[in-house]
Amino acid sequence: MCNACVIEHVKETMLSRRSLFMGAAASGAAAIAASAISARPAMAQASGKVVDLTYVFDEKFPTFDGAPGIAYEEAVNFDKSGYQLWKLTIVEHSGTHIDAPLHFSKDGMSVDQIPAESLICPLCVIDISAKAKDDANAALEAEDVQAWVSANGDIPKGACIAMNSGWGAKVATPEFRNTPDGKFAFPGFGKSATDLLAEMGVAAIASDSLSLDPGNSPDFAVHNSWLPGGRYGIENLANVDQLPAKGATIFVGAPKHARGTGGPARILAMV
Amino acid sequence: MCNACVIEHVKETMLSRRSLFMGAAASGAAAIAASAISARPAMAQASGKVVDLTYVFDEKFPTFDGAPGIAYEEAVNFDKSGYQLWKLTIVEHSGTHIDAPLHFSKDGMSVDQIPAESLICPLCVIDISAKAKDDANAALEAEDVQAWVSANGDIPKGACIAMNSGWGAKVATPEFRNTPDGKFAFPGFGKSATDLLAEMGVAAIASDSLSLDPGNSPDFAVHNSWLPGGRYGIENLANVDQLPAKGATIFVGAPKHARGTGGPARILAMV
Repeated sequence: MCNACVIEHVKETMLSRRSLFMGAAASGAAAIAASAISARPAMAQASGKVVDLTYVFDEKFPTFDGAPGIAYEEAVNFDKSGYQLWKLTIVEHSGTHIDAPLHFSKDGMSVDQIPAESLICPLCVIDISAKAKDDANAALEAEDVQAWVSANGDIPKGACIAMNSGWGAKVATPEFRNTPDGKFAFPGFGKSATDLLAEMGVAAIASDSLSLDPGNSPDFAVHNSWLPGGRYGIENLANVDQLPAKGATIFVGAPKHARGTGGPARILAMV
Repeated sequence: MCNACVIEHVKETMLSRRSLFMGAAASGAAAIAASAISARPAMAQASGKVVDLTYVFDEKFPTFDGAPGIAYEEAVNFDKSGYQLWKLTIVEHSGTHIDAPLHFSKDGMSVDQIPAESLICPLCVIDISAKAKDDANAALEAEDVQAWVSANGDIPKGACIAMNSGWGAKVATPEFRNTPDGKFAFPGFGKSATDLLAEMGVAAIASDSLSLDPGNSPDFAVHNSWLPGGRYGIENLANVDQLPAKGATIFVGAPKHARGTGGPARILAMV
């Protein structure tokens, strides 16, 4: 594909999404439904490079409550049977994973009900790593969204907004979850930002830390507003520092078990 | 994206993949590694339509051995805590899922080690539904691959080859797994086909039935040759009848747990 074609196509896609946004209900389940039905997924740019946004998941991967998120039991042994497989026990909200609306709403959309069309999205990356260096509980706020728009243009409807707080560099250390003096702390989204992103018709937010809300959140304000609105979240997104601010396409391999409140997912980007 | 651009791009991608194939070792781990490093993933065509190739996974979803593939245990209760989540027990090879090389080789590639680049592939669909109507254990053989190539052109290196046996129409019935008189039976790939596909540098095969091998296979010949060669498989692929014979791109959301022999995956196509 020639570069001119790609650029032309991305412009067309964004224009189409913006038009939809202007004409459609701009928040909550209505927006995600409109996106799912009408919007064309973003296409990736010409390089075709794949960036894996998923951590390897094992018993040692950090979790919100500190307990292992996965356990393995041998179900079939290779030496005995000529093949092998595990029976796995998995806590839904561990590893690189999805938060479905049902996680924070009694009757919300379960992970299998998230429209497939909203799992392939234009990806915008907002960098708050400078303030997260000074504050382990730094929040991505509305002003950070506005600064991104000033620098990069409108956020396309149906996009996924990823936070780059620099936390990925800490994933193999205790500081992914705690300050050096042992206080539970990591960056997250602020409600001022997610309220604005909801108005913009964004489909998903993704955190490069353990949670959508910062570690010191007293009330899970983002979980409690973003998810019940019919949108989804991603936690522990990997390799966000390898992504451009705009122009990538995210592919969200959300699990599809019935009644799921979320679960480990395979997430890739084409940049 | 204009249609001319799409066509031009697909041609370029296929030429590039073919050149790679001609110059590289054409089987096993070498081929998948070459594909992972050098080949550009396929791009989807212009319509941007997403087809979900994943079944909803629950306790009733048919499995190879007949036992439930997933069990749910409440981990957090909404009425008590204001949010909710499950602890899941999952047999790796159930639902729409991946077979990693490690499933049929003692030290093969585990599911987390499959290169991310080989999870976004050009998708070719070979229809054997006519012969599967007469034979529940019908196999997709080399002659079916050759007929596809005669009709559609060369298979791109790094492609995923999906079998459409028509079995998706039976998924909610006992006949997905057994003949009406109770014999274990479903279509699958024949080794004549998968040996040829390995020579062609194909990355993955996908079955719309319970297994890569037909139900009456005495020896898992395809599992035992395809997987140890460093390639992966997909079983229980959904909605293959909604796909074109060529031109779609498959996104394989393989799970990424360490040491995994496979596992439930979210699989989408852009057509």
